[in-house]
Amino acid sequence: MEKYVYAFTEGNKDMRNLLGGKGANLAEMTSIGLPVPRGFTVTTEACNAYYESGKKINKEMEKQIFEYLEKLEEVTGKKFGDKVNPLLVSVRSGARASMPGMMDTVLNLGLNDEVAVEFAKATGNKRFTYDSYRRFIQMFADVVKGYPKSSFERVLDEFKEKKGVKYDTDLDENDMYDIAMKFKEIYKEIAKEEFPQDPKVQLLEAIKAVFRSWMNDRAIYYRKMNDIPASWGTAVNVQEMVYGNLGESSGTGVAFTRNPSTGEKKLYGEYLINAQGEDVVAGIRTPESIETLEKVMPEVYKQFVETAEKLEKHYKDMQDMEFTIENGKLFMLQTRNGKRTAQAAIKIAVDLLNEGMVSKEEALLKVEPKQLDTLLHPMFDAKALKEAKVIATGLAASPGAGTGEIYFTAEEVSAAKKAGKKCILVRLETSPEDIEGMNDAEGILTIRGGMTSHAAVVARGMGRCCVSGCGELKIDEEKKTLTTKDGKVFKEGDYISLDGSTGNVYGEQIKTVEPEFSGDFGTFMKLVDEVKTLGVRANADNPKDASVAHKYGAEGIGLCRTEHMFFEKDRIFAFRQMIAAETLEQREKALEKILPYQREDFEGLFREMDGLPVIIRYLDPPLHEFLPHTDEEIKPLAKELGVTFESLKSRVESLKEFNPMMGHRGCRLAVTYPEIAKMQTRAVIEAAINVTKEGKVVEPEIMIPLTGDVKELAFVKKIVVETADEIIKEAKADVHYQVGTMIEIPRAALLADEIAKEAEFFSFGTNDLTQMTYGFSRDDAGKFLGDYVEKGIFENDPFTKLDQNGVGKLVDMAATLGKKSRPDITLGICGEHGGEPSSVEFCHKVGLNYVSCSPHRVPIARLAAAQARAKELLEK
Amino acid sequence: MEKYVYAFTEGNKDMRNLLGGKGANLAEMTSIGLPVPRGFTVTTEACNAYYESGKKINKEMEKQIFEYLEKLEEVTGKKFGDKVNPLLVSVRSGARASMPGMMDTVLNLGLNDEVAVEFAKATGNKRFTYDSYRRFIQMFADVVKGYPKSSFERVLDEFKEKKGVKYDTDLDENDMYDIAMKFKEIYKEIAKEEFPQDPKVQLLEAIKAVFRSWMNDRAIYYRKMNDIPASWGTAVNVQEMVYGNLGESSGTGVAFTRNPSTGEKKLYGEYLINAQGEDVVAGIRTPESIETLEKVMPEVYKQFVETAEKLEKHYKDMQDMEFTIENGKLFMLQTRNGKRTAQAAIKIAVDLLNEGMVSKEEALLKVEPKQLDTLLHPMFDAKALKEAKVIATGLAASPGAGTGEIYFTAEEVSAAKKAGKKCILVRLETSPEDIEGMNDAEGILTIRGGMTSHAAVVARGMGRCCVSGCGELKIDEEKKTLTTKDGKVFKEGDYISLDGSTGNVYGEQIKTVEPEFSGDFGTFMKLVDEVKTLGVRANADNPKDASVAHKYGAEGIGLCRTEHMFFEKDRIFAFRQMIAAETLEQREKALEKILPYQREDFEGLFREMDGLPVIIRYLDPPLHEFLPHTDEEIKPLAKELGVTFESLKSRVESLKEFNPMMGHRGCRLAVTYPEIAKMQTRAVIEAAINVTKEGKVVEPEIMIPLTGDVKELAFVKKIVVETADEIIKEAKADVHYQVGTMIEIPRAALLADEIAKEAEFFSFGTNDLTQMTYGFSRDDAGKFLGDYVEKGIFENDPFTKLDQNGVGKLVDMAATLGKKSRPDITLGICGEHGGEPSSVEFCHKVGLNYVSCSPHRVPIARLAAAQARAKELLEK
Repeated sequence: MEKYVYAFTEGNKDMRNLLGGKGANLAEMTSIGLPVPRGFTVTTEACNAYYESGKKINKEMEKQIFEYLEKLEEVTGKKFGDKVNPLLVSVRSGARASMPGMMDTVLNLGLNDEVAVEFAKATGNKRFTYDSYRRFIQMFADVVKGYPKSSFERVLDEFKEKKGVKYDTDLDENDMYDIAMKFKEIYKEIAKEEFPQDPKVQLLEAIKAVFRSWMNDRAIYYRKMNDIPASWGTAVNVQEMVYGNLGESSGTGVAFTRNPSTGEKKLYGEYLINAQGEDVVAGIRTPESIETLEKVMPEVYKQFVETAEKLEKHYKDMQDMEFTIENGKLFMLQTRNGKRTAQAAIKIAVDLLNEGMVSKEEALLKVEPKQLDTLLHPMFDAKALKEAKVIATGLAASPGAGTGEIYFTAEEVSAAKKAGKKCILVRLETSPEDIEGMNDAEGILTIRGGMTSHAAVVARGMGRCCVSGCGELKIDEEKKTLTTKDGKVFKEGDYISLDGSTGNVYGEQIKTVEPEFSGDFGTFMKLVDEVKTLGVRANADNPKDASVAHKYGAEGIGLCRTEHMFFEKDRIFAFRQMIAAETLEQREKALEKILPYQREDFEGLFREMDGLPVIIRYLDPPLHEFLPHTDEEIKPLAKELGVTFESLKSRVESLKEFNPMMGHRGCRLAVTYPEIAKMQTRAVIEAAINVTKEGKVVEPEIMIPLTGDVKELAFVKKIVVETADEIIKEAKADVHYQVGTMIEIPRAALLADEIAKEAEFFSFGTNDLTQMTYGFSRDDAGKFLGDYVEKGIFENDPFTKLDQNGVGKLVDMAATLGKKSRPDITLGICGEHGGEPSSVEFCHKVGLNYVSCSPHRVPIARLAAAQARAKELLEK
Repeated sequence: MEKYVYAFTEGNKDMRNLLGGKGANLAEMTSIGLPVPRGFTVTTEACNAYYESGKKINKEMEKQIFEYLEKLEEVTGKKFGDKVNPLLVSVRSGARASMPGMMDTVLNLGLNDEVAVEFAKATGNKRFTYDSYRRFIQMFADVVKGYPKSSFERVLDEFKEKKGVKYDTDLDENDMYDIAMKFKEIYKEIAKEEFPQDPKVQLLEAIKAVFRSWMNDRAIYYRKMNDIPASWGTAVNVQEMVYGNLGESSGTGVAFTRNPSTGEKKLYGEYLINAQGEDVVAGIRTPESIETLEKVMPEVYKQFVETAEKLEKHYKDMQDMEFTIENGKLFMLQTRNGKRTAQAAIKIAVDLLNEGMVSKEEALLKVEPKQLDTLLHPMFDAKALKEAKVIATGLAASPGAGTGEIYFTAEEVSAAKKAGKKCILVRLETSPEDIEGMNDAEGILTIRGGMTSHAAVVARGMGRCCVSGCGELKIDEEKKTLTTKDGKVFKEGDYISLDGSTGNVYGEQIKTVEPEFSGDFGTFMKLVDEVKTLGVRANADNPKDASVAHKYGAEGIGLCRTEHMFFEKDRIFAFRQMIAAETLEQREKALEKILPYQREDFEGLFREMDGLPVIIRYLDPPLHEFLPHTDEEIKPLAKELGVTFESLKSRVESLKEFNPMMGHRGCRLAVTYPEIAKMQTRAVIEAAINVTKEGKVVEPEIMIPLTGDVKELAFVKKIVVETADEIIKEAKADVHYQVGTMIEIPRAALLADEIAKEAEFFSFGTNDLTQMTYGFSRDDAGKFLGDYVEKGIFENDPFTKLDQNGVGKLVDMAATLGKKSRPDITLGICGEHGGEPSSVEFCHKVGLNYVSCSPHRVPIARLAAAQARAKELLEK
C-alpha cells in the first residue's frame, strides 16, 4: 500500500524529494521543537499518481487524506466543518525546489456560511471571521478556479472608497461581512454555481488544484529555465490556521537571517500587524522593517531572533522564513535556504566558513556555479535599469550588459568602433565571417537562432553579451531598420541596450558598470582551487582569448580552433585560394601564404600560456563553409582569385553536401589533402621553436579532429610526426609535442582502446558526440526539441546539459578503454558542456583529467569541479 | 627472429595465410607425394615487412632467401650461376586469394650469357637453351621491369616472317640464339643498362617485383572489387625449373577436374607440346584438348588422371591444375580450387555431396552466396553479348541484364511501356518520384550516385538491373540526349543495353534470356534451408514485391517502408496536402484521404504473406522530401493544393534542414504530428481485421523508426496502442499485433535495455546506424570514401559490408541488453547489410533471429545464413 500522506511529526528535512521543500522543513522545524502549526503533507508521489490515473485522486489517497485530517482534528481539538470550534486549514503547494510558477496558498479553508456565523460568535470577533471568509473566497476563486482576481479586488476598492479609507484594516466588521457576501455573489456569477460549502469538497478541490498547477504554463516554463524534471511532482501541505489578522497583537511577516542582496550578517525582513499571509508581499500596506518589531513586541522579537539563529545553525545556511503572530504568540510557517545574489552567496559562504559553521567543502556548495557568471560581466547600473523600457525579449544567450548604437553588418560595426563609437551588432543571424565585428561590438542581437546558434556560441566564447532568437523584432537588413511589435522603428546609429542574462532588449542607452572582483570573490576562488582535482582549461582561438582565460584561472588551452584564424580578412583570401586550387601545386602555394599567419597566432598563444599545455585542433569544418554560395557572391570572388566564374562555381558545387555535419570535414580533410596538415604542423612546430628560444616553456599538443578509426588517425599522425620531426631536426631544437585526437564520433568512443594506441590524449567533443549519438543535428533539432521537452520526453536540451545516460555512457566507455591501452593517457572534454556544472560533475566522476570551456565560463567550471570533489568528500 | 622463408617440404595447405594459396598448395602436393619441382616460398609477412621498411628487403630476409637457395642447390644437385649444371628457377607471386591483377611468373631465372653457352653444350640442346633465355629476358623485362611486351614480340614476329613460318616451334637453334641476343639489345635500349647477368641480382629483383606488384593499380582495383584487405600481402614462390620446351616429349598444360562452366564431372583442359608456361594461355598456338593427351602420351595421361582424382579427393573440391611434362615425366606446378560459374558451383556441390565426397555442410560452402545473384536475373545471350560493344562502364549497382529504348523521365518510360515498348530509364540521378517509371523500365542508368544511391537501392529492391554513377556519359536531360566519351549521341528511343552485374553499358539491343531454376538449384536451396537457423525475411513495400519475396523463400516481411506508398501519383497529392496543412483539422482531413490507400496496400501485403510476420515501419523520411523546392515547381503545386504560393513557399522553407539525415524524421514526426501515427495505425489494424475475416492469419508488427530514447518510444507506442485497441474493441475483432522499434540511432543501441522495456522487437537499421556511428552521411561519404580505401584506411565500404568492429559492437551490445530486459524479444536486421554474406554471418553469430533484405537477395541471404551455421557445425 502506497503511503500518500505524512504528518509533520513523521517527516524531516531529508525527505524533501517525497514531501517537497516546504513540507520537509515544516516537519524538521516541528521535530526541533519550534512552534509550527500542526498539519500533514500529501506527497510528491501522490502528485505523480494523480497524473498517472488521468488526473484523479484515487480512493486510497482520498482515504489517507481524510484519516490524517481526523488525526489533525484530534490533536488540535478542533473539527472540520464544526460551527463553534471549526478547524480551518491552509493548503500550500511545495515542490522539491521552490517554484514561483505554481499555485501557492489557500488560507482559511473550512469556512462556509454556517460556520462563519457561529465562529464569529464563538471568537467574539466578527470582523476577523468575515475578513478570513472573504480572503478564503477570493483565494479559492483565484488559485483553485483560476478566476480573475481583479473582479474581487475591485469590490474591496469600492468599499474603501465609499468609506473614504485607505487600508482594509480601516474597514469594520459589517464591511467585512458585506464584502464576503459580495464575493460569494461574484463567485456564483463566474462559476455558475454556489461557492462550495462542504469543507471536504473545498479541501479535495484545493489539493487537486495544487497538483494541476504543476503542469500550468508558468510552472513548465520555470522548470525548463531551471532544469527541473517534470517527474519530480509537487507535494501539498495542509496545516492548521493561525491567525495574523486577530487584531493589534497579531501579525505576519517574512525575514532572512542575512541580507540576501549583500550577504551582510544581519536579520533582514518585514512584517505587518493585523494581516494574513500574502498581505506583506501584496503591497496593500507598506510593511515595517523587522527591527521595529523589537519595540512593538519585544518578547516576540527576542524569540524570533533566537529562532532565526537556531534555524541558521541547524540548516548551516542563511534562512528565508515566514512567520505569523497570533495574539502575541509566534508561529513559524516556513523556513528554507534563502535565495541570494551572487555577491551575497560568495560573502555568506566565506562568512559561514570563517564563523566555523560550515566546512570548506560545505562552504563551496553554497554558491550556484551559474551565479558566478553575473559577477564576470558588465552589468547595468541598477537605478538606470529601473527606468528603462523593455522593447522586446529574446533568448538570454550570453550574459552581461551591452549598450551602444546599432549597426547591421559586422563591417559597419568595426568601422564605427574605429571611429570611437560603442556599437551593438544586429543581424538576422550571424555567420563565421562576422567574427571580427562581433568582437568589436558591445553586444550582439540576432533575430533567429537558439541558445546554441553561431551568435550564441561565439558570443559566449568571447564573453560578449548576446540576445539571440529575438523574433519579436523585425529586421530589414537592406533598409537597416529594426521594428518593434508596436511599430517603433530603430535606425542605424540609434541606441539600444541588451541584457544577455535576461534576454531583455531596451530601446535606449543605459549606463553600465564593470564587474568588481571583491576580496570575498578572491578568497572563495582560492578555496575552489584548493578542493578541486579536475583541471579546467579554456577554449581559446587567439592570444586575446588566451589572456582572458589565463586571467580567469584556466590551466591551459583545451581547444584552439585553427579555422577561426582563417576568417580574418587578410587571411580568408589565401584560404579561399587554397580551397579553389585545382592542383596540389596551387594548393601548396596558397598554404605557404597562410603559414606565417598561423605561426604568428600560435606564437602568441604559446607566449601567453607559457608553461601551460596548449591543444591545437587541426582544420575541422567542411571547406564549403569558407566559400560563398550564390552566383552574385561567387562572381567577384572568382575575379579576386583570378579564376573563371565557371571553375569556381563548379568547385563550390562539387563541395556542396547533403549533410555537411556528416560530410567531408575533420581529419577527413587531412586524408584527402595531407598538405593542409603539413602546413599546420609546420606552423605549430616553428612557433614552438621560436617561443622556446624566448625562454618560455612550450609543449604543444596537436589534436586531430573527427577520428573514427585508428588507421585514419595513424595516417594523419604519420604526416604530423614526419613533418614535425624533420623541422625539429633541421632546427636542432629541443621541442616536445604530443599528438592526440578528439573523441566525437561514436565509433571512436566504441573503439577507444584501439584509438589510444595512436593517441596520446583524448578530448571528448561532446557537441558532435551528442549529435551523432542522438542522430540529430544541432541546427535542425531546434524544430522539434521544443515538442520533446513540452511533451515530457526530454527533461533537458542535451546540447546544453550532457546526456549522462547515453552520450555519457560512451564517454565513460571510451575513458575506460583508453586508459586500458594507455594508462597515462590525458582525458579531457571540450565543447559547450565543459562549462555546464552538472556536466562538469559527470566529467569528474568518470575520471577525466580536465574540462575545457569558453574563457568566461572558466570560473564556473572551476567551482563546479570543486563542488563535485566536495560532494565526494562529504559523502565519505 | 622472424622466419621469412619456408621450403615446400615445410608447409601444408593450411598455411595459406603465410605462404599464399600457390605456396601452400605446392607444399601440400609435395607432402602427399605428388611430383612437384622443389622450391621455397618467401612469405606474405615478408611482403608486409618489405613495405614497412620502405620497400626494402631487409638483411635478415635476404640472408634467409640465399640460405634456402643453397638448400635448393643441395637437393637438386644444381648450382645457381653454374655454367654446366645451372639451377634455373621460376619466380611466381601467390597471394592468399588468387589475384589476376598481380605479377605472375618469371621463368628460367638464373640464365645469363655465360651460363647459356655452357648450358647449351651440356644439354646438347642449343635451341632449348636460347628459347629459354629469350623467354627469360622478355619476362624479366615485362614483369620485373614493366617494359612493353610488344617491343619483344615484334622481333619474334619479324623472325617468323623472315623464315616464312607460323609458329615459334618452327624456329631453329640459330634463330633462337639471334632472338635472345636481339632481346638483350632491346632491353639495354630501354633500360639504359645491360641485362643483369648476376643470377642473385636477378632473383632479388624478381622477388621485389612480386612484392611491388601487390600495390599496382590493377591489384588494388581487384582487391577493392573482391573485398581483399591490403594487409594480406603476397608470397613469392621460387621453384626449380622443369622444362616443357625440351622437344616433342615435353609440354605444358592446364586442366580442371570438372567442367568449370557446367559442372559436368569430366576432366576439362588443354595442353601444348614443346612449350613453356604462358604459351598455353597466350594463344600463340592453339592448344590441344586434354583428352587427346591419352593418345600422345598414354602413360603420362593415366598418371595425370590419377593425380587429378587424388587432388580432388584430397581437397574435396574441383581442382584447377597446371602441369609440365619434361621428357615424358609429369610435374605438377599448381593446384587450387577452381573458379566456376554459378551453375557449375551448384552442380558440383550437389554432385560432391551425392558422391559422398563432402558432408552437407561442406557442400553448402562450395557456392559463393554472391554467385546466386546471376542465377536470379535475366542474362544476356552469351553469343549476342560477345559481339556487342561497350560504350561506357559505370557501377554494377543492381545485377541482371536489361535492353530497351532510352527515355529520360520516369513518366515517359511509363507512357512508352503502356505503348508496348521496352525501355531503359536514363537519369542524372533518380528521386523518389521516379519509382513508378523505374518499375516500368527494363533497367536504370544514372550518371551520378554510388552503390547506395537512390537508384541503386530501389533497383536492387525491385530486382531491376541498374548501372549507376556512369560519369563517362554526358546527359542532357532537356535535349534528351546521352553522349559517349567518343562523342556518339544517343537520343530518346535509341536502344542501349545494361549489364548490372558488370556495370557495362552497350550501345545497342542485345538478346536476353530468362533465368532457369534447374533441378540442382532446387536441391541445393533445400539443403540451405535444412541447415540454416537464422531466419530470412524480405524488405517489401507492396504486394508485388511481397510476392517476389515469397517466391524466393522469404519467411516474412522484415521491413515495409510505408512512405514508398505515398509516392504514387494519386496519393502524393493528398500526402502533400497533409504536409502543407496549417492546422490539425486540415491535416486530419488530408490523412483521411490517405487512409484507404494505405489500408488497401496493407491488405495486399497481409494476404500475400498469410501466416508470416509482416513488419510495417511508420513514416520515416523528413517531410520536405515530399515537396518541391524551386519556385517554378511550388507555384503549380500551390494552385493544385488550393493554397497561396507564399504560404506553400513558407512551409517549404520552414521544413528545410541543414542536415536532413539528422533532422525531423522518423518517430520525431509522430511526436510532432501524432495524427499521422494514428492514421497509420488505423490503416494497419483495419487491414488486419479485414484480411483476418478472409480466413487468413495476420499478426502485424508495427515498427517505430529512429527511436533514441525509451520515453520517445513510449510516447508513440501509447498513441499506437490506444488507437489500435479502440478499433479492435469497436470491431469486436481478435487481432494481435506487436509494437517494436528500429535500432538505428547509437543512443538506442547504448540504452537498448531501457528501450526493450517498451519494444517487443528490435530491427537494426544498419544503414542509419552506420551513418551515425561513423559520423558520415551516405550521400556525402562518396566524396572521400574512395581516398580511404585507396590509402588503405578502410578495407571496405561500411555501407556495403557491415563494420563488425564498431557498428557491430553496438549491434552486439544492443542485442545483449535487449535480451536482458526482455528475454523473448525478436531481433532482426533490415537495411542493405541484410543481404551481404559476411554481414549475415555476423548476424548469425551475435544471435539475431533473422535478417531482412531486398527480395532478390533473399536466396543469397539464405545461403549465407546456412553457411554461417555450417561453419559453426564444422568447427565443432
